[in-house]
Amino acid sequence: MTEENPLDKILSPSSIVIFGASENITTMGTYQLLNLRASGFPGRIYPVHPKLENIQGLKAYQSVLLLPEIPELALITIPPDQVLKVMDELGRKGTKRAIVISGGFKEIGEQGEEREKALKKIATQYGIRFLGPNCIGVLNPWNPLNITMYPYKQSPGYLSIASQSGTYVTQVLPYLEKFGIGYSKAISLGNEADIDVVDALEYLEKDERTKAIALYLEMIRRPREFIEIGKRVTKKKPVLVLFVGGTEAGARSGQSHTGAMAGSDEIHSACFKQAGMLRVPDVQSLFEWGFTLAMLPRLKGKRIGICTHSGGPATSLADACNRVGLDVPEFSEELQGKIKPFIPKTGSAKNPVDLTFSIDMEALYLKIPKLILESGEVDGLLLHGIGGESYYEDLQKLDNGMIKFPVKELAYYMKKIFTGLQELSKKLEIPIICSAFIGREDNAVAMVQDSGIPCFLTPERAVLAMRALLKDNVTPSINFQLPL
Amino acid sequence: MTEENPLDKILSPSSIVIFGASENITTMGTYQLLNLRASGFPGRIYPVHPKLENIQGLKAYQSVLLLPEIPELALITIPPDQVLKVMDELGRKGTKRAIVISGGFKEIGEQGEEREKALKKIATQYGIRFLGPNCIGVLNPWNPLNITMYPYKQSPGYLSIASQSGTYVTQVLPYLEKFGIGYSKAISLGNEADIDVVDALEYLEKDERTKAIALYLEMIRRPREFIEIGKRVTKKKPVLVLFVGGTEAGARSGQSHTGAMAGSDEIHSACFKQAGMLRVPDVQSLFEWGFTLAMLPRLKGKRIGICTHSGGPATSLADACNRVGLDVPEFSEELQGKIKPFIPKTGSAKNPVDLTFSIDMEALYLKIPKLILESGEVDGLLLHGIGGESYYEDLQKLDNGMIKFPVKELAYYMKKIFTGLQELSKKLEIPIICSAFIGREDNAVAMVQDSGIPCFLTPERAVLAMRALLKDNVTPSINFQLPL
Repeated sequence: MTEENPLDKILSPSSIVIFGASENITTMGTYQLLNLRASGFPGRIYPVHPKLENIQGLKAYQSVLLLPEIPELALITIPPDQVLKVMDELGRKGTKRAIVISGGFKEIGEQGEEREKALKKIATQYGIRFLGPNCIGVLNPWNPLNITMYPYKQSPGYLSIASQSGTYVTQVLPYLEKFGIGYSKAISLGNEADIDVVDALEYLEKDERTKAIALYLEMIRRPREFIEIGKRVTKKKPVLVLFVGGTEAGARSGQSHTGAMAGSDEIHSACFKQAGMLRVPDVQSLFEWGFTLAMLPRLKGKRIGICTHSGGPATSLADACNRVGLDVPEFSEELQGKIKPFIPKTGSAKNPVDLTFSIDMEALYLKIPKLILESGEVDGLLLHGIGGESYYEDLQKLDNGMIKFPVKELAYYMKKIFTGLQELSKKLEIPIICSAFIGREDNAVAMVQDSGIPCFLTPERAVLAMRALLKDNVTPSINFQLPL
Repeated sequence: MTEENPLDKILSPSSIVIFGASENITTMGTYQLLNLRASGFPGRIYPVHPKLENIQGLKAYQSVLLLPEIPELALITIPPDQVLKVMDELGRKGTKRAIVISGGFKEIGEQGEEREKALKKIATQYGIRFLGPNCIGVLNPWNPLNITMYPYKQSPGYLSIASQSGTYVTQVLPYLEKFGIGYSKAISLGNEADIDVVDALEYLEKDERTKAIALYLEMIRRPREFIEIGKRVTKKKPVLVLFVGGTEAGARSGQSHTGAMAGSDEIHSACFKQAGMLRVPDVQSLFEWGFTLAMLPRLKGKRIGICTHSGGPATSLADACNRVGLDVPEFSEELQGKIKPFIPKTGSAKNPVDLTFSIDMEALYLKIPKLILESGEVDGLLLHGIGGESYYEDLQKLDNGMIKFPVKELAYYMKKIFTGLQELSKKLEIPIICSAFIGREDNAVAMVQDSGIPCFLTPERAVLAMRALLKDNVTPSINFQLPL
């Protein structure tokens, strides 16, 4: 028997009562109800409003006490001075889970701190567990459930986040979309008056669709428990943490934001290390490395193969590998001999394999990678230069169709190639990471990402993500020697 | 009187003879001619082909000797064993500038090295100066001239590149497009048998539309001259360098690529420092920082103002500023007093200014930035959360139009705001850098970038670019304390 985590019902409720929604486009609650309904949430939704009888096509109620059932979850997005009364009514109705979106609590100083204490007291009295206040809600694309103000447009994924900033559950969605990164669960923690990051770690530990966990933290409220749970979780799945409270300006900003009182940077680094977590330097790394860790097997060694049709990126990849502590071994004569028939005379088979200018997609993306992966000479493979229709479409436009490029014929062919590549990686348990100076507007990049192989925008970002797959929890970084 | 640089005519020829173009889509020359014509090149184009009489609608000639004029520039994209003969014919015709695209020279070993020496000998004999071999051509969007195989679709810009890899003159174009980064000039150096990076630096030094120079280098062939010219150029405009030949794997890859024999990393770092250049760790930084340096005034001090509607990014920006050595001073009571009327009660005016959830675009993007910039309390301003129509369009779609968002009305309004912001930055000579988790698919991001203000995809990338505007040539990096 597994003990219930307060987040179980919050991420998968059967019914929701929502306070603060209307048809007024200047209020956040309106956007939340819009998304909740559009997300395809399979449960029942009850808007509560003091005046309106009908909101966005749904019957509205004047009070939660008038609802025909006890809603499992309450979503509260109303002015702060009304939150306590609503929490009391929820208690009387029997609702046991809530998300308090409203701001105006600990983060605004003394008056807000008093209000937050009172809120917690009422909740405790009725046995209500809640997220927030001053948070933005949660996403569960598998359910599906989206009670944030941002549309979630991607497929469900395997990376989860628990964040003391709501931005990483909402505004970051267009960014994740660019890389084909899907969330499994996303939890905005806000001020953590009740449910905190420790609860979130416990919840995500058990969630089978969460293969890696990203944390955005301005402070840790229960450090002992954080380390204890962290040690346990990181034995099962990787945890990455972006901690922004360890500088003077970061701590001050965090205090205005979520009432965070952060400590020293060194102490936090030690805490993350003890918990077995990977500390990351920025948002880009949090998501790129988190996605990579969620999708790919770990590196079993440091030997990296490189395959591309561009000499510059080949050299950038090789150089960056060495700089982050990965090896780029020259391939055996035997392996080079097998590769040579597939590359032009001007190319190189040594590692990096450089096809130079070549439009033989199957050689670059499948045949040569297969030879390299099956050779036993590498622990990971980097592939630069993913590209499909977009280049030919651009040329075709220039030309007014005088020259016929095989634009449409490519798609079927590429789908076969990239599916084969992903199956090979999975079978051999060797991670493959791609890069291309183009995004999902190109259909090959979209195919690669959708097959579960990360494809990033520069060679070095692919290398850094590859380095994150080593199990030593060293933060990847491209360094060079300072002048003598 | 200014001495002529061999690149003058290569970047701005009045007539071009092209060897290797046809209508065969498996050869690079075909793509080059397509682009050359589509780029709007105002000069005359002469294809030479042994058999065809007509190529892509142009009259073709059997030999350069048969052309009706002496072409100023030759573009050579033919098998390596035919290059010497063509170079000799060019000499006899009187052509003095060439770009040798063909590979199969020093980069393939001994045989190729002999061929490269012979090529250089013929050229010298006739006084021909040439780029390459094993390069990809040049871009001059101001002329306009594009003799590469990639379409250039952006507006001309103020960042120039000289690169020992052709990728950074071609395949990188879709990447640059994402950030609104336009090239002034782009020069693919290839094997540097004749014209090298030193010539390129001299050329770009004089080019008035080049405001910053990016270099991609696998080795330096004339270090003494490189440092000497570098010292002079960097007094006038910033030079950034991505050097990838300082590791074992990078040097080996470079040798296969452009025949580069690199030296130690420390020695190169010292060389770049002496030359007054900024060494960068990766391609992303080369372009983001290069663009920033090309577009914005330098930082006169370390005091940074931050303005956003998202608490998480506010804290990330503040924290990252401190980590790269920038200050985020708390604003004076006076300035805070002026800002407060524009922000909600839940917001903060201290610095970072955090509007929290607010849709008052003019406050966020113009009124508050104006107060901050005019206060004299900051040397630079970071603005996170640029966003226009895309969010509302997404919501509108969900809703089937039930709720009316002012999507179309926004554009005119925003244009005014961002133009005002850019004018303010220019007048006060204070750099502004933006970030948003969305790209140019959003019209506000496109407007900001097109006004000349960089807008990057994460808060930390904006901070790093801001740090690059300090004149100390320290490579920006986000560091944290290692565990105790």
